[in-house]
Amino acid sequence: MDRTIKQNLKSVIMAGGSGTRFWPKSRRLFPKQFLKILSDKSMLQMTIERLLPLTPMDDIYIVGNKNHKALFNQQVPRCHDHHLILEPMGKNTAACIATIAFIIARENPENILFILPADHWITNPAKFRDTLGLAAITAFHDDAIVTLGIPPTFPSTGYGYIKVPADQMNPDNGSDPPVHRVEAFVEKPDLERARSYLASGNFFWNSGIFVAKASVILDEIERFLPDLYAPLKNLRTIDLEDLAGFLETTYPSLPSISIDYGVMEKTDRAMMIEADFGWSDVGSWDALYDLSPKDQEDNVTEGLVLLENCRGCMISSHGRLIAGVGLENIVVIDSADATLILPRGRSQEVRQIVARLEEKGMEDLL
Amino acid sequence: MDRTIKQNLKSVIMAGGSGTRFWPKSRRLFPKQFLKILSDKSMLQMTIERLLPLTPMDDIYIVGNKNHKALFNQQVPRCHDHHLILEPMGKNTAACIATIAFIIARENPENILFILPADHWITNPAKFRDTLGLAAITAFHDDAIVTLGIPPTFPSTGYGYIKVPADQMNPDNGSDPPVHRVEAFVEKPDLERARSYLASGNFFWNSGIFVAKASVILDEIERFLPDLYAPLKNLRTIDLEDLAGFLETTYPSLPSISIDYGVMEKTDRAMMIEADFGWSDVGSWDALYDLSPKDQEDNVTEGLVLLENCRGCMISSHGRLIAGVGLENIVVIDSADATLILPRGRSQEVRQIVARLEEKGMEDLL
Repeated sequence: MDRTIKQNLKSVIMAGGSGTRFWPKSRRLFPKQFLKILSDKSMLQMTIERLLPLTPMDDIYIVGNKNHKALFNQQVPRCHDHHLILEPMGKNTAACIATIAFIIARENPENILFILPADHWITNPAKFRDTLGLAAITAFHDDAIVTLGIPPTFPSTGYGYIKVPADQMNPDNGSDPPVHRVEAFVEKPDLERARSYLASGNFFWNSGIFVAKASVILDEIERFLPDLYAPLKNLRTIDLEDLAGFLETTYPSLPSISIDYGVMEKTDRAMMIEADFGWSDVGSWDALYDLSPKDQEDNVTEGLVLLENCRGCMISSHGRLIAGVGLENIVVIDSADATLILPRGRSQEVRQIVARLEEKGMEDLL
Repeated sequence: MDRTIKQNLKSVIMAGGSGTRFWPKSRRLFPKQFLKILSDKSMLQMTIERLLPLTPMDDIYIVGNKNHKALFNQQVPRCHDHHLILEPMGKNTAACIATIAFIIARENPENILFILPADHWITNPAKFRDTLGLAAITAFHDDAIVTLGIPPTFPSTGYGYIKVPADQMNPDNGSDPPVHRVEAFVEKPDLERARSYLASGNFFWNSGIFVAKASVILDEIERFLPDLYAPLKNLRTIDLEDLAGFLETTYPSLPSISIDYGVMEKTDRAMMIEADFGWSDVGSWDALYDLSPKDQEDNVTEGLVLLENCRGCMISSHGRLIAGVGLENIVVIDSADATLILPRGRSQEVRQIVARLEEKGMEDLL
């Protein structure tokens, strides 16, 4: 990689999520990125570790929610204070990316940003870094916003898709992964359409990972999201010591929109690299089961668990014994104050439980 | 009922059990008879309440295990000290019955004993008492040991059976339940034999409830279990203030044998009354599900439980939320330190979990 490029790399970890799909382990005040899933390190810590060979700690930025400040300080004590940007509220990815792009552009607008969620699973970190490196080169030379597209392995209805031109598809040359012009970003499809995408060969899962120069991102946000750009542009000049106060007054009125919908679907600067490093957004208990090492009966267990004649189960105990007898394909997730039990394949329905808790005002369990 | 009979009635509640079938709610130090199952009273308390119209508290005796003394004092504060017989260890029902028969015979050998387990469920207590009254009359006039036989409703392999002569079977005359001579006590059968018993019409479930004069019981124990009778016969004369010490020295060497096997299978004094008062030994979580009131989706819930699209489940929470999604016919029993999860119909296998805990030396969970 060109030395100019290498010196300008910055990692931006989007860690502001507060999803409910890992309830009851994830909570509003303890979301998934802070959980130790598949590791003795949290997903956030693993994300940072994976990036360190590419961008040392001095070049890593984290954007999170101010409610999680103590968790960030505990889990990432080495993060510079000025590199931890705490949003006063979640306003989706466009606001998050605009904010950090403005801040990083102050130093050098040509800095290249690796923008990644804090809660993804990567099987092959070395290949992941190689792909990011290639994306950085593409972003640098072409002023592109480069996304990483995951070759789909099944007709998932849980991911957005990236469509690349069919005539541009050519066999992998064996070294670098193919780079494509993006034809369209497509929202989560129904099963029938997902099947046709899978069959077509020119649709890829949208990983939510973007690589681009700060200046390019800001140009596109100015063009397609002027209502977001205008209130944030003072970030170019304010005293960063006053950042928290600025965000506190500015964020409430910002539009809440995703970078995919707000920019990527509209820009002609989008490119996509085929990513083949073993990826999952670990978006559900089912996804976690698929990724986890299993015993001879295909069970996944954690903590104090006793199983008799069980098969295909995932049982996670939290300091108490969980005993299962004769269970097949059942997921049990225990926490200090709540236990979730459901069959495998139904983990999307966890949202309904969380919605019921909200309805009933059971705030302490959210 | 004859006044002579009525004045001589004594209830004997066998409450020494320490079964494992209700794990994790029942424990060695908190067995099933002390659990509040299907009621806000414990099974022991319900058993006593059911007997009070027949035998006031002054005529009720409880035989239990000394490890449970505090529980007895808490749950049955009105029981006379001399009416609570605490065994130093469990030695099965023959030893228990011999001990209490000796003690009650001191007052009057002609006293008639209702001997009943402390942990059964009776749907119709009035009919239950009527049946016991009839049994008392039969025991009094015929010097019989009268058992209550439950007309089987399915080919259970979980109960022993009582066989009565087929030629003796005659239609219910509409008032008192039929009384039969007993042809044989039969141990728990396999499914094929259970089916033939059910079809035959002259096999009944052995309820484990016996009614007999103290003198008759002692005669039969002397005859068929002399090794049990001999060491206990000093109970006729010792100072009952020294009872605990006597049992402490005598019990360890007593044979451990059930009254069914030791006496009832051999005696020619056994009679059986058909019992039709709604009976269950609540011998498993499955049996409890069958007895419990259900919601529209056939779920039984207790405590803080949230269900989405669940059917035929029994979920018992213990101070924490249990959330179920898409479950069918699953039993979840929570306790402070352990949670059991199994499909309905598999609750006999709870024993295997308990055995595993024993193997692993996890005494605190037993």
